[in-house]
Amino acid sequence: MKALALVAVCAAIVGLVVALILASWIKKSDQGTDRMKEISGFIREGAFAFLKREYKIMAIVIIVLALLIGIGLQSVTTAILYVFGAVLSVLAGFFGMNVATWGNVRTAAAAKDSGMNKALKIAFRSGAVMGLAVSGLGLFGLGIVVVCLDLATVVQCITGFGFGASSMALFGRVGGGIYTKAADVGADLVGKVEAGIPEDDPRNPAVIADNVGDNVGDVAGMGSDLYESYCGSIISAITLAAVAAAASGGLFDEATAALFPLIMAAVGIISSIIGIMMVRGKEGSNPANALNMGTYIASGIVVIVSIILSKAMLGSFSFAIAIIAGLVVGVAIGKITEIYTSGDYKSVKKIAEQSQTGSATTIISGLGVGMMSTVWPIICIAVGIFAAYFATETVGTGMGMYGIALAAVGMLSTTGMTVAVDAYGPVSDNAGGIAEMAELPHEVREITDKLDAVGNTTAAIGKGFAIGSAALTALALFASYSAVTGLSAISLLNPIVIIGLFIGAMLPFMFSAFTMNSVGRAANQMIEEVRRQFRSDEGILAGTVKPDYAHCVDISTQAALKEMIVPGLMAIIAPLAIGIILGPEALGGMLAGALAAGVLMALMMANAGGAWDNAKKYVEEGHYGGKGSDTHKATVVGDTVGDPFKDTSGPSINILIKLMTIVSVVFAPLFVAIGGLIG
Amino acid sequence: MKALALVAVCAAIVGLVVALILASWIKKSDQGTDRMKEISGFIREGAFAFLKREYKIMAIVIIVLALLIGIGLQSVTTAILYVFGAVLSVLAGFFGMNVATWGNVRTAAAAKDSGMNKALKIAFRSGAVMGLAVSGLGLFGLGIVVVCLDLATVVQCITGFGFGASSMALFGRVGGGIYTKAADVGADLVGKVEAGIPEDDPRNPAVIADNVGDNVGDVAGMGSDLYESYCGSIISAITLAAVAAAASGGLFDEATAALFPLIMAAVGIISSIIGIMMVRGKEGSNPANALNMGTYIASGIVVIVSIILSKAMLGSFSFAIAIIAGLVVGVAIGKITEIYTSGDYKSVKKIAEQSQTGSATTIISGLGVGMMSTVWPIICIAVGIFAAYFATETVGTGMGMYGIALAAVGMLSTTGMTVAVDAYGPVSDNAGGIAEMAELPHEVREITDKLDAVGNTTAAIGKGFAIGSAALTALALFASYSAVTGLSAISLLNPIVIIGLFIGAMLPFMFSAFTMNSVGRAANQMIEEVRRQFRSDEGILAGTVKPDYAHCVDISTQAALKEMIVPGLMAIIAPLAIGIILGPEALGGMLAGALAAGVLMALMMANAGGAWDNAKKYVEEGHYGGKGSDTHKATVVGDTVGDPFKDTSGPSINILIKLMTIVSVVFAPLFVAIGGLIG
Repeated sequence: MKALALVAVCAAIVGLVVALILASWIKKSDQGTDRMKEISGFIREGAFAFLKREYKIMAIVIIVLALLIGIGLQSVTTAILYVFGAVLSVLAGFFGMNVATWGNVRTAAAAKDSGMNKALKIAFRSGAVMGLAVSGLGLFGLGIVVVCLDLATVVQCITGFGFGASSMALFGRVGGGIYTKAADVGADLVGKVEAGIPEDDPRNPAVIADNVGDNVGDVAGMGSDLYESYCGSIISAITLAAVAAAASGGLFDEATAALFPLIMAAVGIISSIIGIMMVRGKEGSNPANALNMGTYIASGIVVIVSIILSKAMLGSFSFAIAIIAGLVVGVAIGKITEIYTSGDYKSVKKIAEQSQTGSATTIISGLGVGMMSTVWPIICIAVGIFAAYFATETVGTGMGMYGIALAAVGMLSTTGMTVAVDAYGPVSDNAGGIAEMAELPHEVREITDKLDAVGNTTAAIGKGFAIGSAALTALALFASYSAVTGLSAISLLNPIVIIGLFIGAMLPFMFSAFTMNSVGRAANQMIEEVRRQFRSDEGILAGTVKPDYAHCVDISTQAALKEMIVPGLMAIIAPLAIGIILGPEALGGMLAGALAAGVLMALMMANAGGAWDNAKKYVEEGHYGGKGSDTHKATVVGDTVGDPFKDTSGPSINILIKLMTIVSVVFAPLFVAIGGLIG
Repeated sequence: MKALALVAVCAAIVGLVVALILASWIKKSDQGTDRMKEISGFIREGAFAFLKREYKIMAIVIIVLALLIGIGLQSVTTAILYVFGAVLSVLAGFFGMNVATWGNVRTAAAAKDSGMNKALKIAFRSGAVMGLAVSGLGLFGLGIVVVCLDLATVVQCITGFGFGASSMALFGRVGGGIYTKAADVGADLVGKVEAGIPEDDPRNPAVIADNVGDNVGDVAGMGSDLYESYCGSIISAITLAAVAAAASGGLFDEATAALFPLIMAAVGIISSIIGIMMVRGKEGSNPANALNMGTYIASGIVVIVSIILSKAMLGSFSFAIAIIAGLVVGVAIGKITEIYTSGDYKSVKKIAEQSQTGSATTIISGLGVGMMSTVWPIICIAVGIFAAYFATETVGTGMGMYGIALAAVGMLSTTGMTVAVDAYGPVSDNAGGIAEMAELPHEVREITDKLDAVGNTTAAIGKGFAIGSAALTALALFASYSAVTGLSAISLLNPIVIIGLFIGAMLPFMFSAFTMNSVGRAANQMIEEVRRQFRSDEGILAGTVKPDYAHCVDISTQAALKEMIVPGLMAIIAPLAIGIILGPEALGGMLAGALAAGVLMALMMANAGGAWDNAKKYVEEGHYGGKGSDTHKATVVGDTVGDPFKDTSGPSINILIKLMTIVSVVFAPLFVAIGGLIG
């Protein structure tokens, strides 16, 4: 067993080494003019200022929660694994974002001097470093745990590692999401709308904060989200392995079942490296083809190897069906997301068309699209659960839940590649910002805009994976929860479960209200500050005096850190409170309610936001009057509403449902011991 | 047993007789000038034209579904009861709306000649006729069924009656909701915004359709909604009586347990009559006090009598606790609704304040308020379920679900009064419209505006009852479903249940998307038509040529009837499909998912819509620049988005969750027999 776990650790190390090689390759690339270096320096400085202060808060959270675990559960091992999981999450975010802030300026420089192809390569490789850091550190940590501890301890305590990943992801996603949207909305409303200066104009005091936001929100935040899903899926598969092994009737032992997901993750890392290497843009061709090619190659390798290993390790092809089901569901949700949110399809065009009668119809039709866009992803998830469960349940009764966990592992095995494609977008976006601020020739911005546009489309797949994997991971962890609590049923005919279900369904609404209001408050502060600067010195708008970028960065930082506390605490306290007061069955109901309502809300908000964004871009391309027309103004309203939808509240719900489930798994022994104060 | 059932029938007849007396009193009141008679004639004509065509479609639906029941379930009795329940629903809607269209013009006339007090009396009594028709016909029908059939047949077949009520309610709510909002949005966007003429101006071609909409949507639609809940709650209590009686250990027999809810409903009708009689405005005092007084008196009587009857009939005070829990939850949700949607409280003021930075922030903060407003109602529902369940479960294990059904009965016992207060609003609103169109003196409109404003506040309680009762009724019917299917558990650890849960949670989103898009499409047609009329003859806007009201009425009618079909079919087909394909357990999961997500969505949409509406009114009162300011324009956008939220999609979800549950109960034997094709 230890030997196979070491194989996984080695694959993880290979991934990390490749990440380091790519990083040093990026660092050696040309940084362009002094002005570009200066601007990128500002962005780096702002990003690290945020991270530094965020980490201080996180350090306190880590210590408090580690003590809570150690004392509440009397398990030092769980507490230590919690710290381990959290620290690796922080490392992945730090390393990935560091390279992203190297990549942005170098992408701009490449676009200036060497053209689209080189620029694509740098931007994509910057994303790839984040992707390999996420999956490499995740698998490295989990592999080390399995190597160092005996299996019984692993099964008992490894959820602590997942809790560490989840709690950091929450703060990363929520804090990063608030940061980026406060800066974005503030910069847009005063700069673009009131002062009439273009996007990314250096005269706008919030412009650096806006670019910092892309890094802390879209790169580091998204990375911590997928790191959490990645670890969570493997952990739930490991904890459900015992159930599966017992149900297999001697077909395989627990250790093999526990190692299978680790080995599949190792295969995924190697496949991702191959996929990443295959991404080579050709001058003149659409970069989307190169990116998609990489994704398909990585997925294809996982499919083939999973079939072989499923039979070799576990004696049946059924487990490969679960793995493949997960992968297919992820890709399918991504494609559906694209259909509802891309300007090439009818939903976005309809929003643009309806915007001709004003912003109210923009909002109504966008919400309609968001709601409608939930239908097919939910059916995909349902089919995926069905396939993964029944394929494995036929091998042995009681094994199906392990199959669902494997589907999540399958979906996330190519995380290295998925994150690379996703993080490449914000790097290109930043490169465009730097080109604008450094007043590079117009052609440079055109190249980065094209890369960014491609990134928006390919990122749809990343979003599909983020939501789909959150659903499957939370469900797999839910199964782990039932295994740990020893509940044989959580019946909807028990009113205490229904009460839990109602409360659980309410939590994503409450959580979204918190995060949306946070963005509103933070954006208002930013608006005030930008207005104040414009008023205080006329030279700023004239371009003769430099604005005070640092102050805007500081406002976003402070607001994000302050505003992330309440929703963060809520996600940890809610399951603890329900578990202690109403007992483990009510908590089961709550988790199911939060899972179902949360996935729906996350899909609705992410897709409505994406559709509004692209409806605006569609009008800007010249449809229905183009830029500056009333229709355009209406779509700008939609885009502004959509910003917190798609980049703050929606993705944060992914974390909420996973974090609440893992809190429940970790503290399940406590709830069982208390048995519900009044439940 | 039959004797007690006859008591209920007699109480129902008393209620209906009082309704007739009130109706003839209203009819005898003065109708005002010839111009007023003419306008009210147009409104009546439009309303009945809609109803007539709606009833034609409903007749087809009734025949098809009756055949489906008769053949699919091989139960002629269920099919007959289905038709009975549906026909009584139609009668209640027809009778109530008829009197409402008498009341509107007479309220205006009274406001002109006799002042506020008389106007209040006529408007309120018009609402009271609807209230007594709904509860009187509901209880009459159910009482007759119990009198005529033996108990075993009643328990087996009476859900058919509820299905009849539900299927009519769906078309009434959805069709009426689409009708009223298409006309409203169309009239406002072209008349008020484009042509700059006031609301209810006779030059606006859509003005009659708008006033018709108040009657078919807010009176008839709302009435059919509460008729459905009213019948559904009593039916679920009757079907759960057998379980309760078996669990009581000989404390009471099944017949007594089945009659208790009927008798409590009878008490509720008599209490409502007393409450209605107590509503007497004093010249110079706030009419809200008179209305609230009536509600509190009716509720107080129910509370006291329930305590006595609970002990006398069922030998324990515990059942009164369940009744009272339901009543308290209804009132509490109403109060919370008021706090989040009234201009007197901080949420609405905050939306108005944030509207200063444009319509995007109006939308963001309104959605935030809507999401946040779900928290306390859900906690109230949870506490109500907890109290009702555990109070009765302590009497005998297995009795708790009957207690939850009793909570729903308790909440709905004063339906007569609740509907009266709710329907009084649109009657006053219509009176104001008639006053405007007949060019009555400004003071008349002031009186009707004041009545309308009070109606908006008191209607919050009605909305609380509508959503709260939908949740409790659906939950009680869900318990009936488990009893009929004989499922001992519907466990969330069964993946097929989770699949059902996901699909169920998705349905309210899909349904809302349908209804919102329907309103959008219908409103667009109306906009085109009003514009066309203005263009075709300049005399219309000059006031020298009468517009073609009938054509606008026709557009709303056609659009509503066409658009209600798809969501209507969806609500009936979804449970049938899941029940047949995936089996009864998956269907249980689906119902729970739809219940939880549906209640949340309904609360969110209704309250966001109400808050936007009142934020606009708050600005119109002179805050933040008042009418015509940019802030006002931003709040108008919020109000326009809120219209389909609060008057179409939100309330329609109430019906969706009840209807899907009752379809499941009715067809449960079929699903059990098939057992799920692939589940």
